[in-house]
Amino acid sequence: MFELLDRDGLGRLGRLTTPHGTVDTPALLPVLNPNQMLIPPRELAAKFGAQIVIANAYILHRSMRERTLAEGVHRLIDFDGPVMTDSGAFQQHVYGGVGVSNEDIVAFQREIGSDIGVSLDRFSEPEHGMETAAKDVEETLTRTRRAAEIRGSMMLAGTVQGALFPDLRRQCAKELSKIDVAVHAIGGVVPLMESYRFRDLVRVIVAAKQGLRPDRPVHLFGAGHPLVFGLAALLGCDLFDSASYHKYARDGRMLFADGTRHVEDLREIPCECPACSAAKLEDLKTDERVRAEHNLYASFAELRRVRQAIADGRLWEHVERRCRSHPAMLEALRELRHHNEYLERFEPLSRRGGFFFTGPETQHRPILHRYRQRLQERYRPPKRHLVMFPEGQRPYATTHAETMKTILATHDVHFLVKSAWGPVPIELDEIHPIGQSVIPDTLDAESLEALEVFAQHFLRGAGYERGVLWMGPESLADLPREGPGTFDLTWARLRAVADLQFGRGAADALFTGAVRLVTSKATGKVRNVIREERHILHLRAHDGFFTLKPNGGGILHATFGNRLRVVVESDTAEFNRQGKNVMAKFVVECDPDLRPFDECLVVDESDGLVAVGRTILNREEMLAFDRGVAVQVREGISA
Amino acid sequence: MFELLDRDGLGRLGRLTTPHGTVDTPALLPVLNPNQMLIPPRELAAKFGAQIVIANAYILHRSMRERTLAEGVHRLIDFDGPVMTDSGAFQQHVYGGVGVSNEDIVAFQREIGSDIGVSLDRFSEPEHGMETAAKDVEETLTRTRRAAEIRGSMMLAGTVQGALFPDLRRQCAKELSKIDVAVHAIGGVVPLMESYRFRDLVRVIVAAKQGLRPDRPVHLFGAGHPLVFGLAALLGCDLFDSASYHKYARDGRMLFADGTRHVEDLREIPCECPACSAAKLEDLKTDERVRAEHNLYASFAELRRVRQAIADGRLWEHVERRCRSHPAMLEALRELRHHNEYLERFEPLSRRGGFFFTGPETQHRPILHRYRQRLQERYRPPKRHLVMFPEGQRPYATTHAETMKTILATHDVHFLVKSAWGPVPIELDEIHPIGQSVIPDTLDAESLEALEVFAQHFLRGAGYERGVLWMGPESLADLPREGPGTFDLTWARLRAVADLQFGRGAADALFTGAVRLVTSKATGKVRNVIREERHILHLRAHDGFFTLKPNGGGILHATFGNRLRVVVESDTAEFNRQGKNVMAKFVVECDPDLRPFDECLVVDESDGLVAVGRTILNREEMLAFDRGVAVQVREGISA
Repeated sequence: MFELLDRDGLGRLGRLTTPHGTVDTPALLPVLNPNQMLIPPRELAAKFGAQIVIANAYILHRSMRERTLAEGVHRLIDFDGPVMTDSGAFQQHVYGGVGVSNEDIVAFQREIGSDIGVSLDRFSEPEHGMETAAKDVEETLTRTRRAAEIRGSMMLAGTVQGALFPDLRRQCAKELSKIDVAVHAIGGVVPLMESYRFRDLVRVIVAAKQGLRPDRPVHLFGAGHPLVFGLAALLGCDLFDSASYHKYARDGRMLFADGTRHVEDLREIPCECPACSAAKLEDLKTDERVRAEHNLYASFAELRRVRQAIADGRLWEHVERRCRSHPAMLEALRELRHHNEYLERFEPLSRRGGFFFTGPETQHRPILHRYRQRLQERYRPPKRHLVMFPEGQRPYATTHAETMKTILATHDVHFLVKSAWGPVPIELDEIHPIGQSVIPDTLDAESLEALEVFAQHFLRGAGYERGVLWMGPESLADLPREGPGTFDLTWARLRAVADLQFGRGAADALFTGAVRLVTSKATGKVRNVIREERHILHLRAHDGFFTLKPNGGGILHATFGNRLRVVVESDTAEFNRQGKNVMAKFVVECDPDLRPFDECLVVDESDGLVAVGRTILNREEMLAFDRGVAVQVREGISA
Repeated sequence: MFELLDRDGLGRLGRLTTPHGTVDTPALLPVLNPNQMLIPPRELAAKFGAQIVIANAYILHRSMRERTLAEGVHRLIDFDGPVMTDSGAFQQHVYGGVGVSNEDIVAFQREIGSDIGVSLDRFSEPEHGMETAAKDVEETLTRTRRAAEIRGSMMLAGTVQGALFPDLRRQCAKELSKIDVAVHAIGGVVPLMESYRFRDLVRVIVAAKQGLRPDRPVHLFGAGHPLVFGLAALLGCDLFDSASYHKYARDGRMLFADGTRHVEDLREIPCECPACSAAKLEDLKTDERVRAEHNLYASFAELRRVRQAIADGRLWEHVERRCRSHPAMLEALRELRHHNEYLERFEPLSRRGGFFFTGPETQHRPILHRYRQRLQERYRPPKRHLVMFPEGQRPYATTHAETMKTILATHDVHFLVKSAWGPVPIELDEIHPIGQSVIPDTLDAESLEALEVFAQHFLRGAGYERGVLWMGPESLADLPREGPGTFDLTWARLRAVADLQFGRGAADALFTGAVRLVTSKATGKVRNVIREERHILHLRAHDGFFTLKPNGGGILHATFGNRLRVVVESDTAEFNRQGKNVMAKFVVECDPDLRPFDECLVVDESDGLVAVGRTILNREEMLAFDRGVAVQVREGISA
């Protein structure tokens, strides 16, 4: 019922199908209080773009049980789109346990025709001890299991609890993943958001995500402030719900993507939304409805900005900017580096457009974590004298390019730049994100320190036999001639990229025999690699990586025992041979080293190569999803 | 004709009076091409809030000279608000010199009734050498002088040129300041903005501002992208003009406060403005007019956000956030620290609300530069054993407060915290910005290094006789008793704040004789200081500084020879004695150490104390401005 359409790391654009229609995610569910509907759902949909709303079943049960049962929730609120209901676990926690059981409230939600219901989870406070939290988790799981039995055809959301204990959160999530629910929720987080404990919020979400099946949408309960949409989406949350638009409006507060403002503090209207554009400052100060409309406009616009950022592959930059809005958000941003092992698994091979440095935190993005790791594991430095440039980006790419080419051809040297991101061998300076980086001329001390650490670490392992020379581009011409030069930058580039992209050994396998290169007339750069008159690889201008042609795929298939494979059910392989995409539900296995947007080999269960393509999902996603595309097939291969 | 209403550093809210009405600054002047008016001025005013527009006199002169002369520019464009015209220096520079002289174009602007005209300055390119640039400056000055002679009653803008040479810019600005013009413009900056050379833009603006009289509004020529409004306002620019809203719209590009987007790259509408809210994505892609409206909504909203940020004293934080939108903007932000000597002179004593850490750049804000400077120059450390806490903010303010108070009273020790901003003696932990700081738990390496450097620097100069102990709050109880404690935190606080705020020696003068304190019943904190039954000082909760009462002012007046004074014309002093504000035009002299929002002594020309008050302007502003309030008088003092 949930399909992934596009992604940027854990952030994803999805489509959730419910009995009353589909929802584009990330989605925001405005909270309705049927006793007091400030803005009715039809207007929420027409004016602000809400596709789904949420109401509290607990309140309906308490204050208008008979009527809701008689009419059904959709007629009650006059809305024929998807309606989610909440069980009231939070309310019962805050106001004390009131007499409605898990079974009662789940049955009630089912009877009133809720599209997505929630079982009555047990809410843990952030300060709860391990023992209390573990008991809450156990009770939550028991109740969710029971709810799944009686849900009927209603979709169910199972909520992750576990206070601030990552192991508990992960464990709870793992168990929930085994239960027949359609949506997962992360609960117990409102107190964290209210007290700006965003670092803890990151830890809680990551732990939950690590335990959850990746094929179900994740709802972050109570996340209604646009400030957190980007961060939560970056960590793989798909649904948010907001009573904030109304609550804040009541208190005279306006929501913005970079924080909250009280109307009494305003001398100007710092917003361009239709509500604000039509209002005078006085209206904002006196009219709750105008403020609520503003809050909805601001929230839904931020949601669209987040969606656009995912489509652009710029969600990280979006979040890095948003996290400057408050020191507690910055703290959350600084926390992310501690989860790089996990985040990297979902990180795409590359993105389009510039890669922006926004501060020392950029240094620790998962894509750079991967670059450094692969540089050590996959790149083979030539056994030559190393000339190392100080910090600065690609000095050789401009004025000194010709000099350097000559030197490479006549001297026994190799060049490496200490870039802002760490060491970059000259052959790898065009791959993403190195080649796309936009970096200030002066760096902060933390970034300088980090790049130094990475450079030293790399040099220790790289084994340049003849030592290291430090110099700047000015002194290139003075380089002592040490031995006959045999270094051809063009070939070195192809070899280095192939090994980095496909794994060590790929270059040896691909570039053997009669290989010739086709270069672009416009740029002089290599575009295609032909071996024995067969097109094996295309070198992409936008990210510096290869696209695999069937003949190239064949070589890698023969070379690598079981790497780069996506194994599909043999029955369906014929479709892929015809060029049709690999659907996730037919994937049997997948190389765990494949990442989203990687080039891959599609094989049947007997390891027959049926196609080459580009992954959309990583292994754990391919194995979990029942819907959607796992691999975009570029070219099928006839049997 | 220009009045300053409020300010945040160099950033200012002003009011510019023209023959056709007043303009609130910072203001954005949409550029009109009368040949091709996409959105007519009346609509610009009604829909987007434009108060003034700008048209190119050069184009009018070339393509509709007779008609414009006959109708006047206001009738021509059908607008009865203020209209500025540009001389076309940029166009003549780009398209080559066409036959219209400085005198002709100035006379033309005068004849067509332009409210603000521009002389034909000579445009220097950023890459021009010193000699060319110097000649352009000279020619520009000659032309501006001539223009001033023939301007009639038209207000004139004189443009600062000087390429990238700060001395030339400063010199040009100084000379322009002597000419009878109403507005200053900074020219030659479009190429910098087009190529994202924002660091150079900062250098150019600062150099120009240093030479310009502070009482005239400053127009940044060609600044039409909302990305730069905050930064330019922070550096004291008041007027921007934008052809961008139309030009970008024509190319399919949309302006946002954090950058530019091409409509073809959009999958969502990442905006809530009325144009975007009413449009489908397809409309944005096909309709130039919708895009232009979006660009205007986005630009004017950012302008209002900048104005609100000035009113809030949060312009720095606004700019720090915006500067994360592009690495070249971050570079500009990092440049600002090099101009702290200048920026600090305009920096207010304090601001309301939280003081946010947004990254290592915050470390170098002018307010912190001042704190560190004054700590060394004005604070007198007690000669006791120093106990120094590691990084962390005010650990003693919470759990350990009672323990620390006891220790201070019984041990011969003194406490100092190495805060994120550098050393903070315990007595100064409530003043702005120390007490208002909101800082992440973990700091980047650059911030850590900076605070360490400041701490060491301070300790070297401070002369603690008995050495330094390093410890954390946990080990407080183990502190060895070294001698009888005589340190009273309450009194130490008052003394330290008085010296820091008014200058070394203030505490000795103020807290002598029969002094008693009035504390707040709610918080237990000191609120008022009474000496010999006279109220001399009020200690403010919001920024930890004193408000001066007449009796306190009298003491400081008697103590300090010529400090803290604002000297007013003796004729007008009587008004101040009656409690009326000091108008800038009556200020004769001012203590150069006074900063905006400082407590000050208003004296007549014979140094008779006539009032105590709060400065709005610093010395150079008081002496320059002919309009507006220089000192808000709190209480007058009868003769």
